[in-house]
Amino acid sequence: MKILLIGAHGTLGQAVQANLAARHSIVSVGRNSGDYRADLAQPASLAALLDKVGKVDAIVSAAGNVHFGPLAEMTAEQFNIGLQDKLLGQVQLALLAQRYLNDGGSVTLTSGILSTDPIRYGASASAVNGAIEAFVAAAALELPRGLRINAVSPTVLTESMAAYGAYFAGFEPVSAERAALAYQRSVEGAQTGRVYQVQ
Amino acid sequence: MKILLIGAHGTLGQAVQANLAARHSIVSVGRNSGDYRADLAQPASLAALLDKVGKVDAIVSAAGNVHFGPLAEMTAEQFNIGLQDKLLGQVQLALLAQRYLNDGGSVTLTSGILSTDPIRYGASASAVNGAIEAFVAAAALELPRGLRINAVSPTVLTESMAAYGAYFAGFEPVSAERAALAYQRSVEGAQTGRVYQVQ
Repeated sequence: MKILLIGAHGTLGQAVQANLAARHSIVSVGRNSGDYRADLAQPASLAALLDKVGKVDAIVSAAGNVHFGPLAEMTAEQFNIGLQDKLLGQVQLALLAQRYLNDGGSVTLTSGILSTDPIRYGASASAVNGAIEAFVAAAALELPRGLRINAVSPTVLTESMAAYGAYFAGFEPVSAERAALAYQRSVEGAQTGRVYQVQ
Repeated sequence: MKILLIGAHGTLGQAVQANLAARHSIVSVGRNSGDYRADLAQPASLAALLDKVGKVDAIVSAAGNVHFGPLAEMTAEQFNIGLQDKLLGQVQLALLAQRYLNDGGSVTLTSGILSTDPIRYGASASAVNGAIEAFVAAAALELPRGLRINAVSPTVLTESMAAYGAYFAGFEPVSAERAALAYQRSVEGAQTGRVYQVQ
């Protein structure tokens, strides 16, 4: 398969690329590196990306920014960062996928454990992840030509514990390599409308 | 209690007002009617509203617009309507509530059944409702001074079946009066971080 991987150089994206590249041709995309450049927060950059890359068999997103911070200090503008980036950016990928995926192709988006297990400072991330998970279930109903869509919802990564571990008190981390299996399952499997929780 | 009710003149809002006004003082808000005017899609209008109204004991939102339409034709701009209106508008109410609610006060937001039971044309609504439900669970962890936050997730209303019934094939509608009980339960009860499903 020819697979477009957004966020290929992040902690998670590198592991997803290592997994998928063993059997598929990867087109890597990042904001500052990769075969192509694009920014989730710029819907037009995603449309331009797919216009350049053309038809693919799978689109995988392992990217997305949200604002973390105390609810007491959060502003609507800060909350909107995640809505425009991790949420609307990934939705835009799914919308574009309807035109740029070959028959039977798939979209795999990334949500995260905070959709169901909230923590302090994570209200924006919880909302964004909850939205992505409800979206894939709804979008799966309407996709044509055997196209599929799923989300992967990982808990905190082992590789991210030094930076984020204090926020995830008592959470059992998973390695990026193990989380990458869920992306493989989505891309190479047959399910649609699923959320693969990696916990 | 002094209760600020956003969307007081909608189908649902009228029933919520009828229920709550029997025991409380209601300050009604709408885009085009009510004691005050405000627009969920304009965060600054909500800040100005609370600045004018001052301290209240409960904030109830029975409002929110999202785009309905086929996924095949949906654009990022259309998807963003619901993110800016029903989602970010209600989140902004919750953020402001931290300053304008009296101790022990509550916020009650509105999601909807499409968070868990998607239908054709409802991908944006599913995402928005899923976000609201995950948000209240997260926000409840951080609210100070005994403040509470819940969401009400109604199915399609009996009063809306003429307009929307075709999209909700086989769904059993509920009356706005029955849905209003869940808002009463949130405002007058003691729970927080809950989603009251009215189905």
